[in-house]
Amino acid sequence: MDPLRSPLLTDLYQLTMLQTYLERGMTDTAVFEFFVRKVPENRGFLLAAGLEQALDFLEALRFSEEELEWIRSCGKFASDFADHLEGMRFDGEVHALPEGTVCFADTPILQVIAPLPVAQLVESRLINLLHFQTLIATKAIRCVLAAPDRLLVDFGMRRAHGAEAGLLAARACWLAGFAGSATVLANPLYGVPVFGTMAHSFILAHESETAAFESFARSHPDNVVLLIDTWDTEAAAHKVVKLAPRLAEAGIRIKAVRLDSGDLADHARKVRRILDEGGLKDTGIFCSGNLDEYRIAELLAEQAPIDGFGIGTRLDTSADAPYLDSAYKLMAYAGRPVRKRSEGKATWPGRKQVWRRLDTDGRWQEDTLGLAEESHAGEPLLVPVMKNGRRIAPSEPMDRIRARVKEEVARLPETARRIHAPVAPSVTPSEALRELARQLDAEAAAARD
Amino acid sequence: MDPLRSPLLTDLYQLTMLQTYLERGMTDTAVFEFFVRKVPENRGFLLAAGLEQALDFLEALRFSEEELEWIRSCGKFASDFADHLEGMRFDGEVHALPEGTVCFADTPILQVIAPLPVAQLVESRLINLLHFQTLIATKAIRCVLAAPDRLLVDFGMRRAHGAEAGLLAARACWLAGFAGSATVLANPLYGVPVFGTMAHSFILAHESETAAFESFARSHPDNVVLLIDTWDTEAAAHKVVKLAPRLAEAGIRIKAVRLDSGDLADHARKVRRILDEGGLKDTGIFCSGNLDEYRIAELLAEQAPIDGFGIGTRLDTSADAPYLDSAYKLMAYAGRPVRKRSEGKATWPGRKQVWRRLDTDGRWQEDTLGLAEESHAGEPLLVPVMKNGRRIAPSEPMDRIRARVKEEVARLPETARRIHAPVAPSVTPSEALRELARQLDAEAAAARD
Repeated sequence: MDPLRSPLLTDLYQLTMLQTYLERGMTDTAVFEFFVRKVPENRGFLLAAGLEQALDFLEALRFSEEELEWIRSCGKFASDFADHLEGMRFDGEVHALPEGTVCFADTPILQVIAPLPVAQLVESRLINLLHFQTLIATKAIRCVLAAPDRLLVDFGMRRAHGAEAGLLAARACWLAGFAGSATVLANPLYGVPVFGTMAHSFILAHESETAAFESFARSHPDNVVLLIDTWDTEAAAHKVVKLAPRLAEAGIRIKAVRLDSGDLADHARKVRRILDEGGLKDTGIFCSGNLDEYRIAELLAEQAPIDGFGIGTRLDTSADAPYLDSAYKLMAYAGRPVRKRSEGKATWPGRKQVWRRLDTDGRWQEDTLGLAEESHAGEPLLVPVMKNGRRIAPSEPMDRIRARVKEEVARLPETARRIHAPVAPSVTPSEALRELARQLDAEAAAARD
Repeated sequence: MDPLRSPLLTDLYQLTMLQTYLERGMTDTAVFEFFVRKVPENRGFLLAAGLEQALDFLEALRFSEEELEWIRSCGKFASDFADHLEGMRFDGEVHALPEGTVCFADTPILQVIAPLPVAQLVESRLINLLHFQTLIATKAIRCVLAAPDRLLVDFGMRRAHGAEAGLLAARACWLAGFAGSATVLANPLYGVPVFGTMAHSFILAHESETAAFESFARSHPDNVVLLIDTWDTEAAAHKVVKLAPRLAEAGIRIKAVRLDSGDLADHARKVRRILDEGGLKDTGIFCSGNLDEYRIAELLAEQAPIDGFGIGTRLDTSADAPYLDSAYKLMAYAGRPVRKRSEGKATWPGRKQVWRRLDTDGRWQEDTLGLAEESHAGEPLLVPVMKNGRRIAPSEPMDRIRARVKEEVARLPETARRIHAPVAPSVTPSEALRELARQLDAEAAAARD
């Protein structure tokens, strides 16, 4: 069973419900929407991401013989249940925000319109895919906003939560505007540019720091970035200066040094001075070590002479907000809009659309959340992406997604874009939507089972 | 390329260093250790986990033709580099803490003894695997300690960070003492028992709440757990009572109800009364919704009548501490112990062992961190698990690991086990280890490159 594609990568209740739906012939069309209930405290907006992988998952959905055998033998299902699953495919419609679209709470990021059983089955993995990339892209864009003109590289795979998290984080960071990632496999899988030079172990394994620097430079003459904090950062910077002429004779330029510990601003200033005085004005300073958008903003506010940042653990785990309060909820079944009213978790009912209004200068003005059949001023954000279980258009190239991010983020109010105490705009529910919610509440209150 | 097994699931610098090591013949034996630098604030100990997957990874390590082709064509490496990688296997030794072992900061959780190039290459994925499961097992055991006699089920896959995180979290929770997980695929992959019944969508898709309850009960007569918070929790509890006799006629027992929102203690008390008065004393109450060990401890301190908990997002993301400050560091190369002294990140040098002393009542007394060649009182914790790149013994069965967790945690001081403001014991470095560190520092200070 393929851990990344198996339809058993779901919650058990999806299967128990599915059996009941099939038994009772509840196979009418359902509308489910994935959305974020609340933008976390330190975020002024969300960047929708993960659609590409969500569509891959839906297109490939099928039960293998091995998976059907598990269903048959696990003792949890009716004896003919596996037979019903055998031919199950995702054959529905999907509407979604294009990846890289800026959005807010309550906005449907993805909308599934499909027969109830299959629309239900895919819930867990769709959330799993859309939640994580949206989470990380939303964290990564804040790093980009903190350091718009610097080289930013994702360093987080090792402490990301598993392999897929590391890989999808690399993609989400690149989508948000990073230069790339240290994670090699993200290049063949997603085209993410990859970066990297040496670890402390490389220095320690050599007889001396200078020997390690020289050995690396001769082996990788086009990519000489030397890690200088293994013992004494400034002493190592002097060694770099001393080594430079010898490398220059061989036509090798020292592209940058990397600092990975201590007071980065202080070290960067001292190292900059040492390099400049040693004639290495073109050698950049690249920093890593416990970084995130807050720390980067501080460093740049102090005017630390840093040219690039490797951002790892706190980015790939979105450490200050490691999850989004998000959900994939039934909005209509068999043409009937529905509404859950659980305390603190009520949903806006019905199949919806969002219209975005800009002012004449192209600045963001308002998002209206309404029923899909309404029409409002502005551009509708949800677009059809899948029909009869197949993509409508080829995958969007990443450069287009990256351009969208840039454009959309620039349109936002400064209050949404800032690093500290950002204010996330709300969507405005339409009058028709509010009326429908009221009406469903009244019906529920009157209902006697 | 298999995203979960590819040797390209690594940081680029592992490959750039590797090329240099091969070019310079630096293929002597290296000792690397994976350890946690600092136990997070709200943790009193760590539970080592992930060894099983780490060993799988090492045993399977090899470059496929497709991966070699990427190396050849990416423009980052010497032309013969791929040829050197072609035959590369992990052929080293591994010593490790058995899974489920309680441990603290600075304790080697895994020790790799292998030729430098391959020992370096595997760093990123080994950290990725060991870090995550140790993180989640350490969070999960706190839930077990908060509710030792309750049924605990992992509900977190959907908001775990990707597929592998969801699957390995299910395993780590089970390892720590959970009854199981909602994640289906964790059963065929790891043997984790799975649990689950219905979502709100199931209620909403039916014409009424009672119809939904009855339809589920008839379809899954052995597993009737009814979700009762879609509209009005207490009203739904009354519907359950009214429905029960009709189901009883068909021999169907209502095992439990589930609450998923609102003030869970208050609802649980009211629902308990309604069920008891309705003759459903044996119907349990199962709760979910934004739970973690803190919330569970509160609910049980209030004596809320809750029989089980479904714990999701905050568990699978370890939300209050979403990463461990952990590292995989070179400790010796070619027989020479080494020490990195980067500010705030200095390591204890050399190949090490940890000895655990218990008192005569079997209570934990002290862990001594020393050099592997020393001998100290107590039981050595690191045991050999791999030789010449192959496992020494078959995989440990999970019931043995779960028993170890129970036993080891019971030995800890109450201060380490408590939920609020726990105090994590420190390991005691041996005199020989401290002397070696001093000596290496003195050599480094005297060194002139």
